[in-house]
Amino acid sequence: MLVKQKAKYIQTLGQKKFREQEGAFIAEGPKLVKELLEENAAAIIEIYAVKDWIVENEKLLAKKDVTEVTDGELEKISQLTTPNKVLAIVRQFDNDGDIDVKGRITLVLDGIQDPGNMGSIIRIADWFGIAQIICSNDSADIYNPKVVQATMGSIARVKIFYTDLEEWLAGQKDIRIYATALEGQDVTGMKKLNEGIIIIGNESRGISEAVLKLTNVKITIPKKGKAESLNAAVAAGIVLGYVV
Amino acid sequence: MLVKQKAKYIQTLGQKKFREQEGAFIAEGPKLVKELLEENAAAIIEIYAVKDWIVENEKLLAKKDVTEVTDGELEKISQLTTPNKVLAIVRQFDNDGDIDVKGRITLVLDGIQDPGNMGSIIRIADWFGIAQIICSNDSADIYNPKVVQATMGSIARVKIFYTDLEEWLAGQKDIRIYATALEGQDVTGMKKLNEGIIIIGNESRGISEAVLKLTNVKITIPKKGKAESLNAAVAAGIVLGYVV
Repeated sequence: MLVKQKAKYIQTLGQKKFREQEGAFIAEGPKLVKELLEENAAAIIEIYAVKDWIVENEKLLAKKDVTEVTDGELEKISQLTTPNKVLAIVRQFDNDGDIDVKGRITLVLDGIQDPGNMGSIIRIADWFGIAQIICSNDSADIYNPKVVQATMGSIARVKIFYTDLEEWLAGQKDIRIYATALEGQDVTGMKKLNEGIIIIGNESRGISEAVLKLTNVKITIPKKGKAESLNAAVAAGIVLGYVV
Repeated sequence: MLVKQKAKYIQTLGQKKFREQEGAFIAEGPKLVKELLEENAAAIIEIYAVKDWIVENEKLLAKKDVTEVTDGELEKISQLTTPNKVLAIVRQFDNDGDIDVKGRITLVLDGIQDPGNMGSIIRIADWFGIAQIICSNDSADIYNPKVVQATMGSIARVKIFYTDLEEWLAGQKDIRIYATALEGQDVTGMKKLNEGIIIIGNESRGISEAVLKLTNVKITIPKKGKAESLNAAVAAGIVLGYVV
């Protein structure tokens, strides 16, 4: 009965409206839940796990309450096609604090739509030690289950803010703002940056005109073949590989 | 009636078994079909398109036969959630020729499973002017509709071969074989390569032990943060950004 009710509740968290209302999201699988326990255990509201996972992670769980479930019960509450040992209901992170761009690289996403790209970019930021990402309000929701999965745990470490991008960028003074574009300065010739704002645009339309006007430098990845463009996450990875 | 039969036939091409049996695959949307018409029109077996697309592409179509369909008919034959003006049935490319690795960069994929990654990597290769990709036999099928879509047309330009990777690599003499790994030589310090074989591994297990033994140099992308790994396509993009 508990599982049935819970399955219904978890189902609702598949929708953004309910996630916002509840201030929660779902994280599944040993890797993701382990990283959350290590980085931000306080955010975990509930854990449902099979016995062997609980035994294996006894230390990490410390005094966290866990509800033991059978494989069959996990299947009922899981949103994955192949349920993976553990499911956690997690409190959405408090990212209302000040955004400080001084002395660091800040990644900005202007309308990234694909959840896989969004998750992949969060993972890239985490790989390169970028601590914060600013998203335009029309970007994909980071608590979308597909985004959460694609971050491979990095969602627990990178701070992500949503804001009116034009307004926010207009307020950034004394810092260089770089726009990734199909034409611009060759990124492979750039020096490593100590600070700066780097903008990645939407998958098909790129960076919007209004945002582009607020940037200082356009940077580009030199093309040697014939593809018209690169996937947004791949472009983010290549650019950060050069400048971070 | 024609549309109904065709819809059934196209449906079967969603399965690898039938694609192989028919030696065909499906390409949808103006961008993809346009690139196929430009690069490899002879491979196109049939085109179904709405009127405005046909009018717009009259020149490109030359003497190619096109069946005009209504939006409703296109919806019936399309495999996309949002049908997009045109659908083509395409002959699988003849990639049985010799694989020549001299004087060029060859990309090798060892067990890439995710269709999105596979498509994205083909697009990256095309961006960097890499003309051929060798895939292990257990890699995702490039004619999978999700792969085809994710290549954004690059599938028409990059030659892709499937082979027994261990056997093939064992036969490569006088050429350097680079394995991308979590530890190895820092790729950011490498010079551009004129020739070489670069291997990208499976999304979770990386490059298999047997394949790794056949390589000369391990290369890695330096990590500055905490993510355990990068998405396979992103890693391919960063590595090629440095060495091509």
